[in-house]
Amino acid sequence: MTSPRLPLRGIVPPTVTPLDRSHRLDKGSFTRVLEHLLDGGVHGIFVLGSTSEVVFHDADVRREIVEHAVRIVNGRVPVLVGAVDPTTQRVIEHARAAKDAGADGIVVTAPFYARTSQAEIADHFRFIRDAVDIPLIAYDIPVCVHVKLERATVATLMREGVIAGLKDSSGDEGNFRYALMDAAERPDFFAMTGAELTADCALLMGAHGIVPGLANVDPHAYVRLYEAAGRGDWAAARAEQEHLCRLFEIVRVGLPRTSVGAAGVGGFKTAMMLLGIVDDNVMALPQRTLEGSEIDRVSEILKSVGLLERAPARAAV
Amino acid sequence: MTSPRLPLRGIVPPTVTPLDRSHRLDKGSFTRVLEHLLDGGVHGIFVLGSTSEVVFHDADVRREIVEHAVRIVNGRVPVLVGAVDPTTQRVIEHARAAKDAGADGIVVTAPFYARTSQAEIADHFRFIRDAVDIPLIAYDIPVCVHVKLERATVATLMREGVIAGLKDSSGDEGNFRYALMDAAERPDFFAMTGAELTADCALLMGAHGIVPGLANVDPHAYVRLYEAAGRGDWAAARAEQEHLCRLFEIVRVGLPRTSVGAAGVGGFKTAMMLLGIVDDNVMALPQRTLEGSEIDRVSEILKSVGLLERAPARAAV
Amino acid sequence: MTSPRLPLRGIVPPTVTPLDRSHRLDKGSFTRVLEHLLDGGVHGIFVLGSTSEVVFHDADVRREIVEHAVRIVNGRVPVLVGAVDPTTQRVIEHARAAKDAGADGIVVTAPFYARTSQAEIADHFRFIRDAVDIPLIAYDIPVCVHVKLERATVATLMREGVIAGLKDSSGDEGNFRYALMDAAERPDFFAMTGAELTADCALLMGAHGIVPGLANVDPHAYVRLYEAAGRGDWAAARAEQEHLCRLFEIVRVGLPRTSVGAAGVGGFKTAMMLLGIVDDNVMALPQRTLEGSEIDRVSEILKSVGLLERAPARAAV
Amino acid sequence: MTSPRLPLRGIVPPTVTPLDRSHRLDKGSFTRVLEHLLDGGVHGIFVLGSTSEVVFHDADVRREIVEHAVRIVNGRVPVLVGAVDPTTQRVIEHARAAKDAGADGIVVTAPFYARTSQAEIADHFRFIRDAVDIPLIAYDIPVCVHVKLERATVATLMREGVIAGLKDSSGDEGNFRYALMDAAERPDFFAMTGAELTADCALLMGAHGIVPGLANVDPHAYVRLYEAAGRGDWAAARAEQEHLCRLFEIVRVGLPRTSVGAAGVGGFKTAMMLLGIVDDNVMALPQRTLEGSEIDRVSEILKSVGLLERAPARAAV
Repeated sequence: MTSPRLPLRGIVPPTVTPLDRSHRLDKGSFTRVLEHLLDGGVHGIFVLGSTSEVVFHDADVRREIVEHAVRIVNGRVPVLVGAVDPTTQRVIEHARAAKDAGADGIVVTAPFYARTSQAEIADHFRFIRDAVDIPLIAYDIPVCVHVKLERATVATLMREGVIAGLKDSSGDEGNFRYALMDAAERPDFFAMTGAELTADCALLMGAHGIVPGLANVDPHAYVRLYEAAGRGDWAAARAEQEHLCRLFEIVRVGLPRTSVGAAGVGGFKTAMMLLGIVDDNVMALPQRTLEGSEIDRVSEILKSVGLLERAPARAAV
Repeated sequence: MTSPRLPLRGIVPPTVTPLDRSHRLDKGSFTRVLEHLLDGGVHGIFVLGSTSEVVFHDADVRREIVEHAVRIVNGRVPVLVGAVDPTTQRVIEHARAAKDAGADGIVVTAPFYARTSQAEIADHFRFIRDAVDIPLIAYDIPVCVHVKLERATVATLMREGVIAGLKDSSGDEGNFRYALMDAAERPDFFAMTGAELTADCALLMGAHGIVPGLANVDPHAYVRLYEAAGRGDWAAARAEQEHLCRLFEIVRVGLPRTSVGAAGVGGFKTAMMLLGIVDDNVMALPQRTLEGSEIDRVSEILKSVGLLERAPARAAV
Repeated sequence: MTSPRLPLRGIVPPTVTPLDRSHRLDKGSFTRVLEHLLDGGVHGIFVLGSTSEVVFHDADVRREIVEHAVRIVNGRVPVLVGAVDPTTQRVIEHARAAKDAGADGIVVTAPFYARTSQAEIADHFRFIRDAVDIPLIAYDIPVCVHVKLERATVATLMREGVIAGLKDSSGDEGNFRYALMDAAERPDFFAMTGAELTADCALLMGAHGIVPGLANVDPHAYVRLYEAAGRGDWAAARAEQEHLCRLFEIVRVGLPRTSVGAAGVGGFKTAMMLLGIVDDNVMALPQRTLEGSEIDRVSEILKSVGLLERAPARAAV
Repeated sequence: MTSPRLPLRGIVPPTVTPLDRSHRLDKGSFTRVLEHLLDGGVHGIFVLGSTSEVVFHDADVRREIVEHAVRIVNGRVPVLVGAVDPTTQRVIEHARAAKDAGADGIVVTAPFYARTSQAEIADHFRFIRDAVDIPLIAYDIPVCVHVKLERATVATLMREGVIAGLKDSSGDEGNFRYALMDAAERPDFFAMTGAELTADCALLMGAHGIVPGLANVDPHAYVRLYEAAGRGDWAAARAEQEHLCRLFEIVRVGLPRTSVGAAGVGGFKTAMMLLGIVDDNVMALPQRTLEGSEIDRVSEILKSVGLLERAPARAAV
């Protein structure tokens, strides 16, 4: 069985999951996140990616997130859903739930914790494809799963029709380029990168989409970047990218008091709190939440790139 | 709240999970595995460790495994249960289920997929300890979770009474030695190693227990090794260990057709099938199962170390 | 003391070192390599980089290589020289020899074998700068030295005037972009990348130069790529880049019979032999040299990208 | 040509290289180091290992070190000499110089900086063996050369008679055990470990020798440990080992102000300075030297383990 195609192009932010102080999904804030992204002109929404703290949520919360996103987005753009768990059968359960909840496609990593080979990883995708009839996108994220989807694995799955697309968060731009060249033979294949700092480069190479966590904070800039690239105005694309690189400094503010993971998503959430998009910047436990002078530092960065015009509300108290 | 102590010493095999050709738990074989281990004289049973393919099982299968093990073991030795999933709250759910099903202690890794810091990892254990009143053993397995439990993290958790023991599968014997020296101040702490090839060394260093996947195949040899060490007969312990090292060659037979993970547990299962302990050597998907000449090679190894006296049943057909 | 500036921009190939069957420098072939590159329109020449098998050559051979290159190039373009050895004082000796032999700049890695910190690495560059008055370029190549030059280290050395440039072979394009943004404050700083597959991207990001080993085979294409980027014709730049990506497949032909290192440089040398630029494709020992069907496969790749129009001479024998 | 055998067993410390404040070899201190070790009862001396800061020394200094060691040791025990540089031909030059200066054996790593395969590494050893007629010991130190000597590579070289011994500083005790089991067929093979913290374990496994950097500080304890193991008194061996583990804390004192490398050897040198064995604790540049409160902390550790009975001279000023 081959994967249905997913006619998607553009900016597809992986949404953060706003939590309240009891670590429960804050639906009001989540609605504002989605509207903020749609207002920014994004071309798709990706929920339950790594940026959403996906592995911290159980099946019930995941379903709640997907259903809420589908209801709010309401067909304005496609909704991709991460089906992320260590092994095949458990991913299939998430994939079925995502489909039932209205997902337009699912995004799946290699198995993790267990150490599998490229041949076993390919079978993993084949089994999922056979079990759930929904566009399947391979998610290459070695920093989390500690194995790379090799070029040959991706190409094989693409040629077999097992996968409809690739989300490359591997940081290996040379290999991603080869994936794009391989994908030239399948015009409906959807290859996107998670690289926040080189979106203009990815588009120059022919990437079909960008999935930047940072777009939670400034979706407009990524959309402007995408549009500039689309009309061949690479100088404008580069200028937007450099603005976003300066903004991306927020992901280091929490270090080393927090982990790399908590600093990154925590930086996004803190900026969004300061911008009034979410009520709180709290992270799923045991991750640490940015606080005190860290919040001030995020605020300074926002002001330095023009996203906050004046002292944030917090400082005004 | 401090962890209850667990007065455990000795050989504590991490059981394999026998599956049938439909990839369902084969309870008959599992009963034979447990009786085989108890006949071998083991001092505890550890279910739902990495050797059990734990992350391949959903909550229902995990409960089934624990309940079956508890019923069969029936108090003859303690039953430890792995509560292995990517994040804190999900581990707590598994831990509660394990306790309800009769576990004597739970074994917990650092978070995985998410990248957490040592401080966040320490909180992970503290939250679990506060949520479930059962002896908590820290499971250091960087080859699966890709972070090491640092010496200071383990020592802090031990001193706070958060953890009752340590299962060290890190391969860092020098650091494990420091953990044992740190543990000297807590006589009821239980520090064990998963190192199949250096059990005699670990006991010489003062380890309280060994958790060798290979004991599924030959529990008697590990028990003899442990007893020899206990009476100070290190030459006998070493001889048993070298026998086990020769047997351990079965974990490489599947390579490179299968992954490292499937070759290891698959080697155990294949040997157990040849020894008549389990009906089948099938692995959870998408892992590959040893077959054909691979099975013959495992058989040769078993014969070369004296565990199979004659041509295996399979060859006699 | 601050480093003299080096007013360099463009394509600066790291030359291979042609050897004869006795593993001695083949000066005739080396002359042809240099003329081939200059005919291709390159803007600088880099000898004794990793592509030159630099660590295989002792001080005498290195001097011979530099003197020969300086004599042949004869001022047509600047000649950069790698001063690569494990530790500071030994690098200083190489740097002095390079300067004496007429180098226009030296290229220096972090210490290797010894494990040094970022602070110690920064001092390494400062000591070299103080010892030899020649433009100093930092060479970030973690795949060989197993430590990354962190962004802050490079920025500090740039601001202090210790280094005149950066050659980034780290594969971390996001970090390289930050280096380029940091370098905006020093208009005479020279930041180049070794990435063969994303030269167009690097130029889009503002890189001043490209140092591609593959340019030994096809310097013209890299020069065309550079010129297209310079006039803002990014579609043409991308087309050249994709041609070069297809050509770059030659670096995998030797695998796994040879090492990654020998396959890469060996792929270049084999193609150059087939193109008549060098007499032999022999590698410094103990590296293995491509042979037999491997040579045929390189030939096929050359033909498939239009660099060899007909059956190679070898096949015609 | 097969390697001559080297009938060596026991404690073979890798000597530090005492430097004066001008970073020149301090021969007076070096004499005292050697006499200190011989007084301690060691069975061999290993100069120009990693602990000697070998890669910081050029050929002249290396020759000076070997000649001085050979003259002082004067046949009382064998003198092994590291021939450590990135590539084969350069190692051969060092090996010849070492032989000429009176070495009893040479110790050689895999190539580094260049990335070579196991097959190429095996050839590296074969070429060296063919070029220099002296016992050749393979030095497995992936933390410096970033490649492991695989079990099969070592076994092949042993069976071919290319190597007379193995120094394993890989930290992989299970693999080392296999090497020892493989070596059982060659009674004159000499397999030693560099593991400071598990010398008793290595001897239990059948290791022929220990090469502990820490023996520079306390050779007597390692000799006592070795002798206890020899007479089967494993409790005494373990007690000595635990004393040495407590002493080994000196290698962390410099962190994170210095690198891991400088903290380790710097810890040894600082302790030796406090014990009056060397005049200074200075490290080869760009490594940082322990100072101020770091020296005080090393002093405290020495006192806590009974090696310094009273306040050190420095504090008495």
